[in-house]
Amino acid sequence: MYSYLSGISMPEDLKKLTEKEVEVLIKEIRNFLIESVSKTGGHLASNLGVVELTLALHTVFDTSKDRILWDVGHQSYVHKILTGRKDEFHTLRQYKGISGFPKISESIHDHFNTGHSSTSISAALGMAFARDLQQQDHSIIAVIGDGALTGGMAFEALNHAGQSKKNLMVILNDNEMSISPNVGGLSDYLTRIRTAPIYYRVKGDIEQLIGKIPAIGKSVVKTVEKAKDSIKYFFVPGILFEELGFTYIGPVDGHNYESLCKVLNKYKNLNGPVLVHVITKKGKGYKPAETSPHDFHGVSPFKIDSGEPLKAKKKTTFSDIAGSTLVKAAEADDSIVAITAAMPSGTGLTEFSQKFPERFIDVGIAEQHAVTLAAGLAAAGCRPVFPVYSTFLQRGYDQVLHDVCLQNLPVTLLLDRAGLVGNDGETHHGVFDISFLSCIPNLVMMAPKDGDELQEMIQYSLKLKSPVAIRYPRGNAGITEDSNNISIHKGKGEILFEAGKDALIIALGTMCEEALKAAHTLAQKGIKVTIINPRFIKPLDEGLILEYANKCNSIYTIEDHVKHGGFGSQVLSLLNDHSINKEVRIFAIPDEFVEHGDVHILHDYYHLCGDKLAQEIQQDFLGNVYSPFVLTR
Amino acid sequence: MYSYLSGISMPEDLKKLTEKEVEVLIKEIRNFLIESVSKTGGHLASNLGVVELTLALHTVFDTSKDRILWDVGHQSYVHKILTGRKDEFHTLRQYKGISGFPKISESIHDHFNTGHSSTSISAALGMAFARDLQQQDHSIIAVIGDGALTGGMAFEALNHAGQSKKNLMVILNDNEMSISPNVGGLSDYLTRIRTAPIYYRVKGDIEQLIGKIPAIGKSVVKTVEKAKDSIKYFFVPGILFEELGFTYIGPVDGHNYESLCKVLNKYKNLNGPVLVHVITKKGKGYKPAETSPHDFHGVSPFKIDSGEPLKAKKKTTFSDIAGSTLVKAAEADDSIVAITAAMPSGTGLTEFSQKFPERFIDVGIAEQHAVTLAAGLAAAGCRPVFPVYSTFLQRGYDQVLHDVCLQNLPVTLLLDRAGLVGNDGETHHGVFDISFLSCIPNLVMMAPKDGDELQEMIQYSLKLKSPVAIRYPRGNAGITEDSNNISIHKGKGEILFEAGKDALIIALGTMCEEALKAAHTLAQKGIKVTIINPRFIKPLDEGLILEYANKCNSIYTIEDHVKHGGFGSQVLSLLNDHSINKEVRIFAIPDEFVEHGDVHILHDYYHLCGDKLAQEIQQDFLGNVYSPFVLTR
Repeated sequence: MYSYLSGISMPEDLKKLTEKEVEVLIKEIRNFLIESVSKTGGHLASNLGVVELTLALHTVFDTSKDRILWDVGHQSYVHKILTGRKDEFHTLRQYKGISGFPKISESIHDHFNTGHSSTSISAALGMAFARDLQQQDHSIIAVIGDGALTGGMAFEALNHAGQSKKNLMVILNDNEMSISPNVGGLSDYLTRIRTAPIYYRVKGDIEQLIGKIPAIGKSVVKTVEKAKDSIKYFFVPGILFEELGFTYIGPVDGHNYESLCKVLNKYKNLNGPVLVHVITKKGKGYKPAETSPHDFHGVSPFKIDSGEPLKAKKKTTFSDIAGSTLVKAAEADDSIVAITAAMPSGTGLTEFSQKFPERFIDVGIAEQHAVTLAAGLAAAGCRPVFPVYSTFLQRGYDQVLHDVCLQNLPVTLLLDRAGLVGNDGETHHGVFDISFLSCIPNLVMMAPKDGDELQEMIQYSLKLKSPVAIRYPRGNAGITEDSNNISIHKGKGEILFEAGKDALIIALGTMCEEALKAAHTLAQKGIKVTIINPRFIKPLDEGLILEYANKCNSIYTIEDHVKHGGFGSQVLSLLNDHSINKEVRIFAIPDEFVEHGDVHILHDYYHLCGDKLAQEIQQDFLGNVYSPFVLTR
Repeated sequence: MYSYLSGISMPEDLKKLTEKEVEVLIKEIRNFLIESVSKTGGHLASNLGVVELTLALHTVFDTSKDRILWDVGHQSYVHKILTGRKDEFHTLRQYKGISGFPKISESIHDHFNTGHSSTSISAALGMAFARDLQQQDHSIIAVIGDGALTGGMAFEALNHAGQSKKNLMVILNDNEMSISPNVGGLSDYLTRIRTAPIYYRVKGDIEQLIGKIPAIGKSVVKTVEKAKDSIKYFFVPGILFEELGFTYIGPVDGHNYESLCKVLNKYKNLNGPVLVHVITKKGKGYKPAETSPHDFHGVSPFKIDSGEPLKAKKKTTFSDIAGSTLVKAAEADDSIVAITAAMPSGTGLTEFSQKFPERFIDVGIAEQHAVTLAAGLAAAGCRPVFPVYSTFLQRGYDQVLHDVCLQNLPVTLLLDRAGLVGNDGETHHGVFDISFLSCIPNLVMMAPKDGDELQEMIQYSLKLKSPVAIRYPRGNAGITEDSNNISIHKGKGEILFEAGKDALIIALGTMCEEALKAAHTLAQKGIKVTIINPRFIKPLDEGLILEYANKCNSIYTIEDHVKHGGFGSQVLSLLNDHSINKEVRIFAIPDEFVEHGDVHILHDYYHLCGDKLAQEIQQDFLGNVYSPFVLTR
């Protein structure tokens, strides 16, 4: 089926092929990608876009010594296939299978782990300093998309690299998109370059020609230099990068393997930093993905002919509910503005963006700017809401603290994908937000047990005159049984279930459902449980928690978050402050990074599920010692 | 003495003056600044540099409705003097006095609080969106230094603003410095502009001229457009900003009040974002500051004639010790590289930068890039050390988590100015680092009790194969009495003092000294105390803490950090994990932002000093109830 691909296990095998055979290989790789990702799910469109580029990189460079850094890293599938991971590729993103991102632990051909955007140039420059200090000799290449280039840290690195004069190649993989179409002046600028009539081939000639213009006399030197620059500007499209100190090469057709190899070969030994501008098409070679690259950015298993997902349409997710609640709120209150950092659809804002285009702001991959933009909006009387994945808010941490909370500005942060996210793995789990946010004064923090509660919490947050963060997980938003009146009052939780005083479970957010399961199981064993849904992480419902902590024989907390500085530790601290010196058993993620895999498997492993919770509580009641698993981590 | 300044209490008073009188006023303001800051200390050089600019802004704009956003904000003194705060200016940065940064709470003329760098364009753009949504009509001006422009979030905002087409003025206050001379390709670029022969005056004419070139026929349109751009590039120095969507005006002489007013008036109603490039001189008008602007960035009280500090040369600081330890280490190990984000002197790296220029990297104001650059260096075999103020590491939070700790890379983060910093106030206190760092797996975290211990900890960290953070405060590094052998072993603390089992005090870092004072006071009252210096925040010395927590009657922790997620809460959590259900009294900063003022006053206020600690412990022993102060916050 794959006549050439089957013969490729390592990059050196590429050398056996003629250029014509490589052209066939390219097709085979695309088919392999489509075939495989249609079963496992994963990032498809971006990988289809870099087949030729990845082959050219592995033809020209030797990644056993040369270092390629894949920015974000979800476009590294072809690289993985070519570097010994083809036969495991069917385990992509599965528990204990290969990761969807570069991983040093998987291969010597992976040189830096990625997952978040815009880190590659910084890491590459660090490696270039190290190489030169150690007097080594190898190439370092950062492959970064035009979307990732809008992230401020990429600019910090470009700015530094341009002046450093280090030998370093930045490949700008320009597909006019991040996940959604790109925004920003830089994006407009790249569009102008792409549509300009001049191509890189003439660059060398022009520069030679310019070099020949004599600089006569001191007084005219500057004007002549300026004139040279001006001529250069006429022919060289990437003057912005040249001004920062890079040699700009491009634009180059990213789907022409031969010309990519030529360009890479020609410029790989150039002195100083070079930026190669490569134009690619997201989804290239697979019709459904070319037509809707956005829908094929990250996909679940799908039917190859139609591109339709295998499973029936998903149920309502927390993101959907956040989006529809914001639409409702914005209809009633025209001060509400929604901000996204290049994630309009992932965060549920599609409808909002259509209904209120003038109140919808996509800033690109730029979380820092997004947060302080929100602060500016709030300081001037608007009511900004910023739905953002928990893990990506780490990028805007200082801005949350310094620009929003210090001024006590009414900004609502919706932390989507809080908790374990599953297959994207360790770089994407949103399990630190309680620790890094709840230490900030003025911030109110909540977690809903279900979709209904999320609605109420968002509406409530919009009335508060202070910053608010609401965390909720990836995936479907059920409706919890036994739900009470869910009107939200500051610092007030609810008794979700009350059978007795044997054990108190304080269950955060969607862990309420697991606590209910456990309570029913335990009831059958004669253990009578009360469950508190705290709703607020900050401020805690002190009255309710203290009352029941005093009443109940043993106290448990459960949260989809790390234990250090998490919800349970705050309950413990509250009890301590009020001289309730009882033990609190905290079910949370121990002090380790969590690998990728199905969320249910991971929750089970960490005992964040009804079964395991019930088991452990039962063991306590049988007088067994506490599970060393929970205690020692 | 100040014949014109004395008549100015609000900006409208400026209107009474002729241009000649304003020239005298300018001199008076400089004298007032020098006079006043020589007594209070504060930021001098940057304020001397913006006297004409600030006057021009207040002449052209009306800050009772127009919004000026001062990036970083330490250059807002002239603005404060002109907006009703002249008579309180002698209280600058003092406890309960006026702040050294813009503060909405101080004046309606302050529109956004700042302190950290590079936030102003984001906030200004947010306000521009709000203004247009609310159909208001006023000007919004961000004043940002060329140093702050290297911060990635400023680029994120420029990129977004350029495309947004919002009416917004960015004033680039270019003094060729951040605190130290600037770095980066952008800085080189600005230098080329400054030294170019063409000035802004011709710009309008050229653009008109270019506009007249007819665009004939579809096929040539692009080439003609390109030719127009090319001509423009010849005359317009700021093409980089123009490419991002801004209208570039400049460079303008920032010490010519008249021409500044003209330019601001001419372009204040321009459609779309405009960047006015103003050239100023740091320290302008005061010889010692002009000669060494760096030394007069932030100053203690000084003698006006000589510029020499009033107090004798300071003792050895923690920063000094960090610097000299790194020099020693680098002499022995050539893999050690020191990184700074525009703070070579503040973090003690001056000697290092001179002795090892090739292993010293100043990245500019770019903490995100600094951290991931360190990760790149470490991944390629070097041993990077990044000394950074605790509060500024908040900017590189995601990078610490995602790029350094997730890959378990050996990077040493030296958190200078951890704890309360004093007069810089709420934006600069480093009191959140334990909360946001200790939740991260793989990270080892320490706090030295004194300078000797800091040395040992740094040396120890350089041998570890994992990331390390060491936090230490601003100011002098004493040597603690009763110090034991200070060789450092992972997760091992020390018994610093042992008089008995009445009370155990676990005192973090320099709080050890306060605990010792308290112990001596308490000994006189017959209360026998043991003090643990834990050295490690993570991993905790479990054995030692548990042993003494079991033995002692009451347990206290004390730390210069917020209580939420801080050191004390981790001790509590450890005890809970091991079923030691005793109360832990946690002395820490409550859940509020801490104002500016002398550190001793602030420590006293928060009971983070020997006296108050002793008092509270004594009260406990007298059977009084716990102080509500500590408990309720």
